[in-house]
Amino acid sequence: MVDPGLLPLYTDLYQLTMAQAWFRAGRGDVPATYNWLFRTQPFDSGYVVFAGTGDLVELLESMHFGNEALGWLRAHGFDEAFVDWLRGWRFRGSIESVAEGEVVFPGAPAMQVHGTLIDAQLIETLLLNTINFQSLIATKAARVVHAAGPTRSVLDFGLRRAQGWGAVAASRAAAIGGVVSTSNVLAGYRYGLDVTGTMAHAWVQSFDDELDAFRRFVEVYPDGAVLLVDTWNTLSSGVPNAITVARELAARGHRLGGVRLDSGDLAYLSKKVRRMLDEAGLDYVRIAVSNALDEHLIKSLLEQGARVDAFGVGTRMITAADDPALDGVYKLVASDGRPRMKVSDNVTKATLPGAKRLERYSDETGAFVGDGVSLADEPLPERIVHPVFAEKSFSPVGLQREGLLQPLIADGVRVRDLPSVREACAYRAERMAKLPEEHLRFANPHVYRVGISERLHALRAELRSVGR
Amino acid sequence: MVDPGLLPLYTDLYQLTMAQAWFRAGRGDVPATYNWLFRTQPFDSGYVVFAGTGDLVELLESMHFGNEALGWLRAHGFDEAFVDWLRGWRFRGSIESVAEGEVVFPGAPAMQVHGTLIDAQLIETLLLNTINFQSLIATKAARVVHAAGPTRSVLDFGLRRAQGWGAVAASRAAAIGGVVSTSNVLAGYRYGLDVTGTMAHAWVQSFDDELDAFRRFVEVYPDGAVLLVDTWNTLSSGVPNAITVARELAARGHRLGGVRLDSGDLAYLSKKVRRMLDEAGLDYVRIAVSNALDEHLIKSLLEQGARVDAFGVGTRMITAADDPALDGVYKLVASDGRPRMKVSDNVTKATLPGAKRLERYSDETGAFVGDGVSLADEPLPERIVHPVFAEKSFSPVGLQREGLLQPLIADGVRVRDLPSVREACAYRAERMAKLPEEHLRFANPHVYRVGISERLHALRAELRSVGR
Repeated sequence: MVDPGLLPLYTDLYQLTMAQAWFRAGRGDVPATYNWLFRTQPFDSGYVVFAGTGDLVELLESMHFGNEALGWLRAHGFDEAFVDWLRGWRFRGSIESVAEGEVVFPGAPAMQVHGTLIDAQLIETLLLNTINFQSLIATKAARVVHAAGPTRSVLDFGLRRAQGWGAVAASRAAAIGGVVSTSNVLAGYRYGLDVTGTMAHAWVQSFDDELDAFRRFVEVYPDGAVLLVDTWNTLSSGVPNAITVARELAARGHRLGGVRLDSGDLAYLSKKVRRMLDEAGLDYVRIAVSNALDEHLIKSLLEQGARVDAFGVGTRMITAADDPALDGVYKLVASDGRPRMKVSDNVTKATLPGAKRLERYSDETGAFVGDGVSLADEPLPERIVHPVFAEKSFSPVGLQREGLLQPLIADGVRVRDLPSVREACAYRAERMAKLPEEHLRFANPHVYRVGISERLHALRAELRSVGR
Repeated sequence: MVDPGLLPLYTDLYQLTMAQAWFRAGRGDVPATYNWLFRTQPFDSGYVVFAGTGDLVELLESMHFGNEALGWLRAHGFDEAFVDWLRGWRFRGSIESVAEGEVVFPGAPAMQVHGTLIDAQLIETLLLNTINFQSLIATKAARVVHAAGPTRSVLDFGLRRAQGWGAVAASRAAAIGGVVSTSNVLAGYRYGLDVTGTMAHAWVQSFDDELDAFRRFVEVYPDGAVLLVDTWNTLSSGVPNAITVARELAARGHRLGGVRLDSGDLAYLSKKVRRMLDEAGLDYVRIAVSNALDEHLIKSLLEQGARVDAFGVGTRMITAADDPALDGVYKLVASDGRPRMKVSDNVTKATLPGAKRLERYSDETGAFVGDGVSLADEPLPERIVHPVFAEKSFSPVGLQREGLLQPLIADGVRVRDLPSVREACAYRAERMAKLPEEHLRFANPHVYRVGISERLHALRAELRSVGR
């Protein structure tokens, strides 16, 4: 959504001040490797759905310093020589990543970037902004969809309370998470998503009479319309009027699509409304509900026997309301041919040094049993240890092993077709099906094992002892 | 950030399905009035800072259905006649609004839109998306800035964990809230904000030695550099190395700007670091801190005597982490010359009917004492009643009275110069200064009075009784 010539300005200023300093110090071309990972599961979730690479790769391909961007830098004190050099800059590095829709876990590097210090640093903020946000929303949506179960639809209604233009990427990510359609037309246009929506309260209020409002609406949309029934009173007015209209339509060979409940006690109302519709011979009329829903409310509604065919989920999904940021980081792990790490005053902020490989281990049924992080240049490890308590370990020998990092971009050129949103969603469903159920539950999900190789463990200990 | 010809697609689909239905029913030109208001204070705040109109007005001026948008609609089942009509569509309605930076309160209509049903409905989602999000972030930022106090700076570091492209508007809103600069270069470019940023851990890690890393950085930036001192150990390595570099700079007539602490116990470290710097004769070297800050942590740090000159605030401000959505709504209050209201099954979702006036009352010192909502066509009310408990009332007679709704757009044409972000920020500061301190505190802020006129109260009762 940003002009490609302005895209390099979509960054934290320090990326540019560091780039200029490396340039001036003659270190701009030093090769480096960075890892993207996150440290904490949002929503106390047992997994995160990785998303965002589809957008990121397209952005990186077009990103360059246009004249406007260069002019701004010049006006803000950047050197003429550096600004001139930026004029020809393009991202020429390489990116490996897990696939969009993959389930990923804390501490495992799901992306790895190789490039010069300047190249890798100039894309950091864009990468973080894209991957952190889309992975967050894809995860939230996957949880909501999981709560709704396989026979009910979840619709994204979030645009009006979403985070400005972030809404477009959020609707994309929600679709990867399994939402079947969105109200957000621009997201539908950009990403080929299914778009749905029929009426709001304003339609009903703009007529003197609710029945008249419904009739005038189905004149235009005789098939599949969803009538909003809570403008006056759901049970005494909205549903009886919807039934009248549905029968009139049926007499002319048409079918009302459904009714939507947007206030009141949705468990109570949905059961009552289902009975009213069924008694009127309208078992095909579906019930959609909305109003401050999230995965926990949906779970609770279904436990109470709510009769719902579709959930319209807005604010709480599109903003990931109970945990609105994923703490993804992008860390230098090697430069100039040497592994690097940050020790930091907080142990949890320490990093794992070196360019890496990420493997997933599955048992004979195909179920995921753990991930292993090892150094890219060591043989496939035969023992994986706990990242902190090295005396806890397991052997991946005999398990199915799968390398998760796939090349996306090599030396600035895309080397893999990007999946569509629909394909990424299908991949997510396939991968979630291989994750044991204990990791999917909402309350205290089982912790998925992510370990490191003995060599990586030894390298970290060595660098920590020399303070490097 | 969206092509103006695609901007009408930045909407919920039902706006377009309703527009087509009104068009087909011959009701597209019916005049209508809508109000924007919110119902609940985010963050248990005593006030909300209104923001977003600067962006909104510019978007509405350029918004039109381009060929791509029309093609999408045609391909998705919209009628040829309606699509043809949309080709010439522009927003021709009128908008009144409180000024950007105004402090606003639940239930008071801070914006009022007059237009045809179609005009007013086609801008609804864009208006909500813009105003809800920017007001939310401006409010959060104002709280953070209030906690930091008048002598310390707050810097926006949020881009990497922000909500995709929402980051640009979020940085704009944070500036209205009082943040002095942002790391977000694109937001700086677009809105003329001050932009700051010096180094990240990657700079330090890319050298074999921290002291060498600092020296190489200040070679390029001999004045005002801020050194990040926690890559290895803040007290035993980072700060001693920063002091060495600061002395070397001072010997050459330069001044180090500051040090930044990004981990560890910031209260303890900042006091210790201040002492180390002062003992080294470096009282001019400032201390910046960052790491998961918000207004509550800043308040706590300062209560512990932390010695901080600048707070870098990221994720928790830019996502409004503890309450990431403002529940702003846009409600039809009149159409076809008649007041309209929605009763709903939830009393809190009921609306106040009719086109309105919004007044603010101040005492002889200029302090705000309450807001009054009345009908646009009644005389200035002499009694304001509680919106629910009508027996509670007060008289604004004798108080200073100020109409808060200013015309921004009249019949599609802008009629007022929009303030810059800096002007909106100054206005916010001026208005917050008139809000009694009890409304600004974090714990149980005093509830600001918003009442309605007796005529509005009577009209609501009348419409409720007839179910209209």
